[in-house]
Amino acid sequence: MDLYSGHINKLIEELAALPGIGSKSAQRLAFHLINMPQDKVNRLANAMLEAKANVRYCRECYTLTDSEVCPVCANANRDHRTIMVVENTRDLAAYEKTGKYEGVYHVLHGAISPMLGIGPGDIKLKELIERLRGDVEEVIIATNSSLEGETTAMYISKLIKPVGVKVTRIASGVPVGGDLEYIDEVTLLRALEGRTPM
Amino acid sequence: MDLYSGHINKLIEELAALPGIGSKSAQRLAFHLINMPQDKVNRLANAMLEAKANVRYCRECYTLTDSEVCPVCANANRDHRTIMVVENTRDLAAYEKTGKYEGVYHVLHGAISPMLGIGPGDIKLKELIERLRGDVEEVIIATNSSLEGETTAMYISKLIKPVGVKVTRIASGVPVGGDLEYIDEVTLLRALEGRTPM
Repeated sequence: MDLYSGHINKLIEELAALPGIGSKSAQRLAFHLINMPQDKVNRLANAMLEAKANVRYCRECYTLTDSEVCPVCANANRDHRTIMVVENTRDLAAYEKTGKYEGVYHVLHGAISPMLGIGPGDIKLKELIERLRGDVEEVIIATNSSLEGETTAMYISKLIKPVGVKVTRIASGVPVGGDLEYIDEVTLLRALEGRTPM
Repeated sequence: MDLYSGHINKLIEELAALPGIGSKSAQRLAFHLINMPQDKVNRLANAMLEAKANVRYCRECYTLTDSEVCPVCANANRDHRTIMVVENTRDLAAYEKTGKYEGVYHVLHGAISPMLGIGPGDIKLKELIERLRGDVEEVIIATNSSLEGETTAMYISKLIKPVGVKVTRIASGVPVGGDLEYIDEVTLLRALEGRTPM
Protein backbone atom coordinates (compact mmCIF):
# COMPACT_ATOMS: atom_id res chain seq x y z
CA MET A 1 0.00 0.00 0.00
CA ASP A 2 2.99 2.34 -0.36
CA LEU A 3 1.97 3.10 -3.92
CA TYR A 4 0.41 6.43 -3.04
CA SER A 5 1.39 9.38 -0.93
CA GLY A 6 0.92 9.41 2.86
CA HIS A 7 -2.46 11.09 2.99
CA ILE A 8 -3.92 8.92 0.23
CA ASN A 9 -2.55 5.71 1.81
CA LYS A 10 -3.96 6.71 5.18
CA LEU A 11 -7.40 7.35 3.71
CA ILE A 12 -7.37 4.06 1.76
CA GLU A 13 -6.37 2.22 4.93
CA GLU A 14 -9.18 3.73 7.00
CA LEU A 15 -11.77 3.04 4.28
CA ALA A 16 -10.59 -0.55 3.78
CA ALA A 17 -11.18 -1.19 7.50
CA LEU A 18 -14.94 -0.70 6.99
CA PRO A 19 -17.08 -3.81 6.50
CA GLY A 20 -17.70 -4.86 2.89
CA ILE A 21 -15.06 -2.52 1.46
CA GLY A 22 -12.08 -4.30 -0.06
CA SER A 23 -8.77 -2.76 -1.07
CA LYS A 24 -9.84 -1.95 -4.66
CA SER A 25 -13.10 -0.33 -3.51
CA ALA A 26 -11.17 1.61 -0.88
CA GLN A 27 -8.84 2.99 -3.58
CA ARG A 28 -11.75 3.98 -5.81
CA LEU A 29 -13.57 5.60 -2.88
CA ALA A 30 -10.44 7.45 -1.74
CA PHE A 31 -9.86 9.05 -5.15
CA HIS A 32 -13.55 9.79 -5.47
CA LEU A 33 -13.44 11.59 -2.10
CA ILE A 34 -10.32 13.57 -3.06
CA ASN A 35 -11.98 14.66 -6.28
CA MET A 36 -15.27 15.57 -4.57
CA PRO A 37 -16.03 19.28 -3.95
CA GLN A 38 -14.76 20.46 -0.56
CA ASP A 39 -18.24 21.12 0.84
CA LYS A 40 -19.41 17.59 0.03
CA VAL A 41 -16.40 16.09 1.81
CA ASN A 42 -17.12 18.33 4.79
CA ARG A 43 -20.76 17.24 4.77
CA LEU A 44 -19.87 13.56 4.79
CA ALA A 45 -17.24 13.95 7.51
CA ASN A 46 -19.65 16.03 9.60
CA ALA A 47 -22.49 13.56 9.09
CA MET A 48 -20.25 10.84 10.52
CA LEU A 49 -19.11 12.89 13.49
CA GLU A 50 -22.58 14.30 14.20
CA ALA A 51 -24.21 10.87 14.06
CA LYS A 52 -21.52 9.44 16.33
CA ALA A 53 -21.90 12.35 18.76
CA ASN A 54 -25.69 12.59 18.87
CA VAL A 55 -27.10 9.14 18.29
CA ARG A 56 -27.84 7.31 21.52
CA TYR A 57 -30.01 4.51 22.86
CA CYS A 58 -33.72 5.21 23.38
CA ARG A 59 -34.36 5.16 27.13
CA GLU A 60 -37.29 2.77 26.63
CA CYS A 61 -36.49 0.36 23.82
CA TYR A 62 -32.74 0.90 23.28
CA THR A 63 -33.00 1.56 19.56
CA LEU A 64 -30.50 4.06 18.14
CA THR A 65 -32.09 7.50 17.99
CA ASP A 66 -31.41 11.24 18.30
CA SER A 67 -33.69 11.94 21.25
CA GLU A 68 -33.95 10.56 24.74
CA VAL A 69 -37.06 8.60 23.74
CA CYS A 70 -37.44 7.33 20.14
CA PRO A 71 -40.46 8.36 18.01
CA VAL A 72 -42.11 4.94 18.38
CA CYS A 73 -41.86 4.90 22.17
CA ALA A 74 -42.93 8.55 22.36
CA ASN A 75 -46.06 7.82 20.31
CA ALA A 76 -49.09 7.46 22.62
CA ASN A 77 -51.09 5.82 19.81
CA ARG A 78 -48.80 2.80 19.76
CA ASP A 79 -49.76 -0.23 21.85
CA HIS A 80 -47.21 -0.11 24.67
CA ARG A 81 -48.39 -3.43 26.06
CA THR A 82 -46.99 -5.35 23.08
CA ILE A 83 -43.21 -5.45 22.75
CA MET A 84 -41.46 -6.87 19.70
CA VAL A 85 -37.90 -7.96 20.44
CA VAL A 86 -35.44 -7.45 17.55
CA GLU A 87 -31.69 -7.88 17.22
CA ASN A 88 -30.89 -4.39 15.95
CA THR A 89 -32.23 -1.03 14.77
CA ARG A 90 -32.23 -2.09 11.10
CA ASP A 91 -34.57 -4.97 11.94
CA LEU A 92 -36.84 -2.52 13.77
CA ALA A 93 -36.85 -0.34 10.63
CA ALA A 94 -37.74 -3.37 8.52
CA TYR A 95 -40.91 -3.97 10.59
CA GLU A 96 -41.71 -0.26 10.75
CA LYS A 97 -41.66 -0.21 6.96
CA THR A 98 -44.60 -2.63 6.87
CA GLY A 99 -46.63 0.16 8.58
CA LYS A 100 -48.88 -2.48 10.15
CA TYR A 101 -47.27 -3.23 13.48
CA GLU A 102 -48.81 -1.12 16.23
CA GLY A 103 -46.85 -2.20 19.27
CA VAL A 104 -43.46 -1.01 20.47
CA TYR A 105 -40.02 -2.62 20.22
CA HIS A 106 -37.09 -3.76 22.27
CA VAL A 107 -33.69 -3.75 20.57
CA LEU A 108 -31.21 -6.31 21.90
CA HIS A 109 -28.16 -5.09 19.94
CA GLY A 110 -27.01 -8.57 19.16
CA ALA A 111 -27.94 -12.20 19.72
CA ILE A 112 -26.59 -14.87 22.04
CA SER A 113 -23.70 -16.65 20.33
CA PRO A 114 -21.52 -19.09 22.28
CA MET A 115 -19.32 -19.32 19.15
CA LEU A 116 -18.53 -15.60 19.27
CA GLY A 117 -18.51 -15.51 23.05
CA ILE A 118 -21.63 -13.33 23.22
CA GLY A 119 -23.63 -14.26 26.31
CA PRO A 120 -27.01 -13.07 27.68
CA GLY A 121 -25.18 -10.35 29.62
CA ASP A 122 -23.78 -8.83 26.43
CA ILE A 123 -27.15 -7.90 24.91
CA LYS A 124 -29.98 -5.70 26.25
CA LEU A 125 -31.77 -8.59 27.97
CA LYS A 126 -31.74 -7.36 31.55
CA GLU A 127 -33.32 -4.15 30.23
CA LEU A 128 -36.11 -6.18 28.59
CA ILE A 129 -36.90 -7.98 31.84
CA GLU A 130 -37.07 -4.63 33.63
CA ARG A 131 -39.64 -3.41 31.14
CA LEU A 132 -41.90 -6.36 31.99
CA ARG A 133 -42.56 -4.83 35.40
CA GLY A 134 -44.84 -2.39 33.61
CA ASP A 135 -48.16 -3.21 31.93
CA VAL A 136 -46.93 -5.67 29.28
CA GLU A 137 -49.28 -8.28 27.76
CA GLU A 138 -47.23 -9.86 25.01
CA VAL A 139 -43.61 -10.16 23.99
CA ILE A 140 -43.16 -11.03 20.30
CA ILE A 141 -39.71 -12.43 19.63
CA ALA A 142 -38.54 -11.33 16.18
CA THR A 143 -34.88 -12.26 16.32
CA ASN A 144 -33.44 -13.62 13.06
CA SER A 145 -34.08 -17.26 12.20
CA SER A 146 -30.36 -17.98 12.35
CA LEU A 147 -28.79 -20.28 14.94
CA GLU A 148 -27.98 -17.28 17.16
CA GLY A 149 -31.46 -15.78 16.70
CA GLU A 150 -33.20 -19.05 17.58
CA THR A 151 -30.95 -19.58 20.59
CA THR A 152 -31.76 -16.07 21.78
CA ALA A 153 -35.50 -16.65 21.21
CA MET A 154 -35.42 -19.86 23.26
CA TYR A 155 -33.47 -18.16 26.03
CA ILE A 156 -35.82 -15.19 26.23
CA SER A 157 -38.87 -17.46 26.17
CA LYS A 158 -37.62 -19.49 29.16
CA LEU A 159 -36.73 -16.31 30.99
CA ILE A 160 -40.06 -14.55 30.47
CA LYS A 161 -42.61 -17.35 30.80
CA PRO A 162 -42.28 -17.58 34.61
CA VAL A 163 -43.14 -13.86 34.78
CA GLY A 164 -46.56 -14.71 33.34
CA VAL A 165 -46.31 -12.63 30.16
CA LYS A 166 -47.44 -14.17 26.87
CA VAL A 167 -44.46 -14.93 24.65
CA THR A 168 -44.79 -15.45 20.89
CA ARG A 169 -42.33 -16.02 18.04
CA ILE A 170 -42.81 -14.63 14.53
CA ALA A 171 -43.78 -17.46 12.15
CA SER A 172 -41.29 -19.30 10.06
CA GLY A 173 -42.51 -17.42 7.02
CA VAL A 174 -39.09 -15.90 7.36
CA PRO A 175 -36.75 -18.21 5.42
CA VAL A 176 -34.39 -20.18 7.64
CA GLY A 177 -30.92 -18.65 7.67
CA GLY A 178 -32.27 -15.37 6.31
CA ASP A 179 -31.54 -11.92 7.61
CA LEU A 180 -34.65 -9.93 8.60
CA GLU A 181 -33.68 -6.68 6.94
CA TYR A 182 -33.45 -8.25 3.46
CA ILE A 183 -36.91 -9.82 3.48
CA ASP A 184 -39.86 -8.32 1.60
CA GLU A 185 -42.65 -6.68 3.55
CA VAL A 186 -45.33 -9.25 2.64
CA THR A 187 -43.26 -12.08 4.07
CA LEU A 188 -42.54 -10.03 7.17
CA LEU A 189 -46.26 -9.41 7.67
CA ARG A 190 -47.14 -13.07 7.09
CA ALA A 191 -44.59 -14.05 9.68
CA LEU A 192 -46.14 -11.58 12.13
CA GLU A 193 -49.69 -12.83 11.54
CA GLY A 194 -48.66 -16.49 11.87
CA ARG A 195 -46.86 -16.02 15.16
CA THR A 196 -47.29 -18.92 17.58
CA PRO A 197 -47.07 -19.19 21.38
CA MET A 198 -43.83 -20.62 22.69
CA MET B 1 -35.66 6.97 4.30
CA ASP B 2 -37.56 8.42 7.27
CA LEU B 3 -37.21 5.17 9.12
CA TYR B 4 -34.39 6.39 11.27
CA SER B 5 -33.67 9.54 13.26
CA GLY B 6 -32.36 12.70 11.60
CA HIS B 7 -28.65 12.12 12.19
CA ILE B 8 -28.80 8.51 11.05
CA ASN B 9 -30.81 9.38 7.94
CA LYS B 10 -28.37 12.15 7.08
CA LEU B 11 -25.38 9.81 7.39
CA ILE B 12 -27.08 7.09 5.32
CA GLU B 13 -27.88 9.67 2.65
CA GLU B 14 -24.30 10.96 2.44
CA LEU B 15 -22.89 7.41 2.32
CA ALA B 16 -25.36 6.28 -0.34
CA ALA B 17 -24.14 9.14 -2.57
CA LEU B 18 -20.71 7.49 -2.83
CA PRO B 19 -20.03 5.33 -5.89
CA GLY B 20 -20.71 1.60 -5.49
CA ILE B 21 -22.59 2.02 -2.21
CA GLY B 22 -26.29 1.21 -2.42
CA SER B 23 -28.96 2.00 0.15
CA LYS B 24 -28.59 -1.30 2.06
CA SER B 25 -24.79 -0.96 2.22
CA ALA B 26 -25.18 2.65 3.33
CA GLN B 27 -27.44 1.53 6.20
CA ARG B 28 -25.00 -1.17 7.27
CA LEU B 29 -22.08 1.25 7.07
CA ALA B 30 -23.94 3.95 8.99
CA PHE B 31 -24.71 1.66 11.92
CA HIS B 32 -21.19 0.28 11.80
CA LEU B 33 -19.83 3.84 12.04
CA ILE B 34 -22.16 4.72 14.92
CA ASN B 35 -21.03 1.62 16.81
CA MET B 36 -17.32 2.24 16.10
CA PRO B 37 -15.17 3.66 18.94
CA GLN B 38 -15.07 7.47 18.90
CA ASP B 39 -11.34 7.64 18.06
CA LYS B 40 -11.78 5.42 15.00
CA VAL B 41 -14.60 7.61 13.68
CA ASN B 42 -12.41 10.66 14.26
CA ARG B 43 -9.53 9.01 12.43
CA LEU B 44 -11.66 8.20 9.40
CA ALA B 45 -13.23 11.67 9.26
CA ASN B 46 -9.80 13.28 9.65
CA ALA B 47 -8.24 11.05 7.01
CA MET B 48 -10.90 12.26 4.57
CA LEU B 49 -10.47 15.94 5.44
CA GLU B 50 -6.66 15.73 5.54
CA ALA B 51 -6.47 13.96 2.19
CA LYS B 52 -8.85 16.48 0.66
CA ALA B 53 -6.86 19.40 2.13
CA ASN B 54 -3.33 18.18 1.39
CA VAL B 55 -3.43 16.08 -1.75
CA ARG B 56 -2.60 18.09 -4.87
CA TYR B 57 -1.30 17.58 -8.40
CA CYS B 58 2.43 16.91 -8.89
CA ARG B 59 3.92 19.96 -10.61
CA GLU B 60 5.57 17.70 -13.22
CA CYS B 61 3.28 14.76 -13.97
CA TYR B 62 -0.03 15.84 -12.39
CA THR B 63 -0.49 12.67 -10.34
CA LEU B 64 -2.20 13.15 -6.96
CA THR B 65 0.43 13.49 -4.26
CA ASP B 66 1.24 15.17 -0.92
CA SER B 67 4.27 17.13 -2.06
CA GLU B 68 4.90 19.67 -4.78
CA VAL B 69 6.73 17.03 -6.84
CA CYS B 70 5.72 13.35 -6.56
CA PRO B 71 8.28 10.70 -5.49
CA VAL B 72 8.61 9.35 -9.06
CA CYS B 73 9.33 12.75 -10.61
CA ALA B 74 11.65 13.65 -7.72
CA ASN B 75 13.70 10.48 -8.26
CA ALA B 76 16.88 11.29 -10.26
CA ASN B 77 17.39 7.58 -11.01
CA ARG B 78 14.22 7.44 -13.12
CA ASP B 79 14.52 7.98 -16.87
CA HIS B 80 12.97 11.42 -17.30
CA ARG B 81 13.17 11.19 -21.10
CA THR B 82 10.48 8.48 -21.19
CA ILE B 83 6.96 9.56 -20.25
CA MET B 84 4.12 7.08 -19.81
CA VAL B 85 0.72 8.70 -20.25
CA VAL B 86 -2.02 7.23 -18.01
CA GLU B 87 -5.63 8.17 -17.35
CA ASN B 88 -5.42 8.42 -13.56
CA THR B 89 -3.31 7.94 -10.44
CA ARG B 90 -4.62 4.42 -9.88
CA ASP B 91 -3.33 3.39 -13.33
CA LEU B 92 0.05 4.93 -12.46
CA ALA B 93 0.05 2.86 -9.26
CA ALA B 94 -0.76 -0.27 -11.28
CA TYR B 95 2.39 0.20 -13.41
CA GLU B 96 4.50 1.18 -10.40
CA LYS B 97 3.51 -2.11 -8.80
CA THR B 98 5.28 -4.01 -11.59
CA GLY B 99 8.52 -2.40 -10.32
CA LYS B 100 10.01 -2.66 -13.84
CA TYR B 101 9.10 0.63 -15.48
CA GLU B 102 11.96 3.12 -15.08
CA GLY B 103 10.56 6.19 -16.85
CA VAL B 104 8.23 8.84 -15.47
CA TYR B 105 4.50 9.39 -15.96
CA HIS B 106 1.94 11.90 -17.10
CA VAL B 107 -1.52 11.66 -15.58
CA LEU B 108 -4.36 12.94 -17.79
CA HIS B 109 -7.13 12.71 -15.18
CA GLY B 110 -9.63 11.37 -17.65
CA ALA B 111 -9.97 10.38 -21.29
CA ILE B 112 -11.56 12.08 -24.25
CA SER B 113 -15.23 11.08 -24.43
CA PRO B 114 -17.59 12.82 -26.83
CA MET B 115 -20.41 10.81 -25.22
CA LEU B 116 -19.77 12.36 -21.81
CA GLY B 117 -18.82 15.71 -23.30
CA ILE B 118 -15.16 15.40 -22.20
CA GLY B 119 -12.95 17.08 -24.79
CA PRO B 120 -9.15 17.43 -25.11
CA GLY B 121 -9.34 20.65 -23.08
CA ASP B 122 -10.84 18.83 -20.09
CA ILE B 123 -7.84 16.56 -19.46
CA LYS B 124 -4.16 17.39 -18.74
CA LEU B 125 -3.16 17.35 -22.42
CA LYS B 126 -1.86 20.90 -22.80
CA GLU B 127 0.38 20.15 -19.82
CA LEU B 128 1.75 17.06 -21.60
CA ILE B 129 2.64 19.07 -24.70
CA GLU B 130 4.45 21.61 -22.55
CA ARG B 131 6.59 18.86 -21.03
CA LEU B 132 7.77 17.85 -24.52
CA ARG B 133 9.75 21.09 -24.73
CA GLY B 134 12.23 19.41 -22.40
CA ASP B 135 14.52 16.48 -23.26
CA VAL B 136 11.86 13.85 -24.02
CA GLU B 137 12.65 10.86 -26.24
CA GLU B 138 9.56 8.70 -26.00
CA VAL B 139 5.94 9.04 -24.99
CA ILE B 140 4.30 5.69 -24.12
CA ILE B 141 0.54 5.92 -24.25
CA ALA B 142 -0.98 3.68 -21.60
CA THR B 143 -4.58 4.86 -21.60
CA ASN B 144 -7.17 2.10 -21.11
CA SER B 145 -8.10 -0.02 -24.11
CA SER B 146 -11.68 1.23 -23.91
CA LEU B 147 -13.27 3.36 -26.61
CA GLU B 148 -12.36 6.54 -24.71
CA GLY B 149 -8.82 5.34 -24.03
CA GLU B 150 -8.22 4.46 -27.69
CA THR B 151 -9.69 7.76 -28.87
CA THR B 152 -7.40 9.61 -26.45
CA ALA B 153 -4.38 7.57 -27.63
CA MET B 154 -5.10 8.39 -31.30
CA TYR B 155 -5.58 12.05 -30.47
CA ILE B 156 -2.31 12.30 -28.50
CA SER B 157 -0.40 10.42 -31.18
CA LYS B 158 -1.54 12.84 -33.89
CA LEU B 159 -0.73 15.78 -31.65
CA ILE B 160 2.78 14.65 -30.68
CA LYS B 161 4.16 13.12 -33.90
CA PRO B 162 4.70 16.53 -35.57
CA VAL B 163 6.86 17.52 -32.58
CA GLY B 164 9.29 14.75 -33.55
CA VAL B 165 9.01 12.69 -30.35
CA LYS B 166 8.66 8.91 -30.61
CA VAL B 167 5.14 7.83 -29.64
CA THR B 168 4.32 4.25 -28.64
CA ARG B 169 1.21 2.48 -27.38
CA ILE B 170 1.25 -0.36 -24.85
CA ALA B 171 0.53 -3.67 -26.59
CA SER B 172 -2.91 -5.14 -26.75
CA GLY B 173 -1.92 -7.68 -24.14
CA VAL B 174 -4.33 -5.62 -22.14
CA PRO B 175 -7.74 -7.19 -22.84
CA VAL B 176 -10.01 -4.95 -24.92
CA GLY B 177 -12.58 -3.20 -22.76
CA GLY B 178 -10.55 -3.91 -19.63
CA ASP B 179 -9.63 -1.43 -16.94
CA LEU B 180 -5.90 -1.09 -16.32
CA GLU B 181 -6.03 -1.20 -12.57
CA TYR B 182 -7.67 -4.65 -12.47
CA ILE B 183 -5.14 -6.38 -14.71
CA ASP B 184 -2.42 -8.67 -13.32
CA GLU B 185 1.17 -7.48 -13.33
CA VAL B 186 2.43 -10.07 -15.86
CA THR B 187 -0.08 -8.90 -18.45
CA LEU B 188 0.79 -5.28 -17.74
CA LEU B 189 4.50 -6.03 -18.28
CA ARG B 190 3.83 -7.99 -21.48
CA ALA B 191 1.84 -5.06 -22.77
CA LEU B 192 4.74 -2.73 -21.96
CA GLU B 193 7.34 -4.95 -23.68
CA GLY B 194 5.19 -5.40 -26.77
CA ARG B 195 4.57 -1.69 -27.30
CA THR B 196 4.52 -0.65 -30.94
CA PRO B 197 5.19 2.67 -32.69
CA MET B 198 2.09 4.57 -33.73
